[in-house]
Amino acid sequence: MKADYLRRAIELAVENVRSGRGGPFGAVIIADGAIVAEGVNQVTSTNDPTAHAEVVAIRAACRKLGRFDLRGCQIYASCEPCPMCLAAIYWARIDQLYFGATHKDAAAAGFDDSYIYKQVPLSPRERALPTERMLEEEAQSPFEEWRRSTTKIPY
Amino acid sequence: MKADYLRRAIELAVENVRSGRGGPFGAVIIADGAIVAEGVNQVTSTNDPTAHAEVVAIRAACRKLGRFDLRGCQIYASCEPCPMCLAAIYWARIDQLYFGATHKDAAAAGFDDSYIYKQVPLSPRERALPTERMLEEEAQSPFEEWRRSTTKIPY
Repeated sequence: MKADYLRRAIELAVENVRSGRGGPFGAVIIADGAIVAEGVNQVTSTNDPTAHAEVVAIRAACRKLGRFDLRGCQIYASCEPCPMCLAAIYWARIDQLYFGATHKDAAAAGFDDSYIYKQVPLSPRERALPTERMLEEEAQSPFEEWRRSTTKIPY
Repeated sequence: MKADYLRRAIELAVENVRSGRGGPFGAVIIADGAIVAEGVNQVTSTNDPTAHAEVVAIRAACRKLGRFDLRGCQIYASCEPCPMCLAAIYWARIDQLYFGATHKDAAAAGFDDSYIYKQVPLSPRERALPTERMLEEEAQSPFEEWRRSTTKIPY
């Protein structure tokens, strides 16, 4: 079964390139032993740089299940998730990840996954992205409001 | 001006908690010296764990500008972006990042940003997320298809 789910993610990725919809990436999410959602890369066809296969699949699974976390679910990705998608998997509380190709394979095909993996752990001032920290004191007010809130929904 | 843009992001974050729409985070994106898009955290109100303020703002800016990259744009975030949002900023090719609170402030308010920052640089087998690599050879086929494609749109 595990190989079948991953093969489906790979097949989605191949089809996605053939159809011209986007990059060579596919993902499927399993809930209760069945595919609950599929995703393919749609960056260029939807003008959405966050529309990676895993993110698209997570959004679709949450919509379908009517909840904002995917505890108890597994994700199968044709390629190792980029840092954006990996962090999305953590935020979605997915239980397990299976993947095929590695982020080095993605880099060899022209994708920035490896580069971004190297950037994320750096401190803001070491990163290639020019970054400035400002108004740290004023910026505490949203958290103060959150602590005071009696109607908040933690996530 | 820079302080004004960041204050707007902070104000959006405070309003977002008051309205009960989501977490204490806001972001604005600047193109050609004006705000082109704003975003607030909508994880719980839209059942989308990827609907962080920066991701929401990036998607809105791309929709408005009709393109999948934001070269020449700046992003102002009430809090240091989590790894998902930081990687999304890289994928969107945003020029500059300004932020207020840090990911330690977010962690102190109960958010997993710091935890995920520690998880991302680990190798798959070191991470708390159980991960299995499979079918690496078969998983090259989407990349082979991509290399062969004459109609692909690189991103």
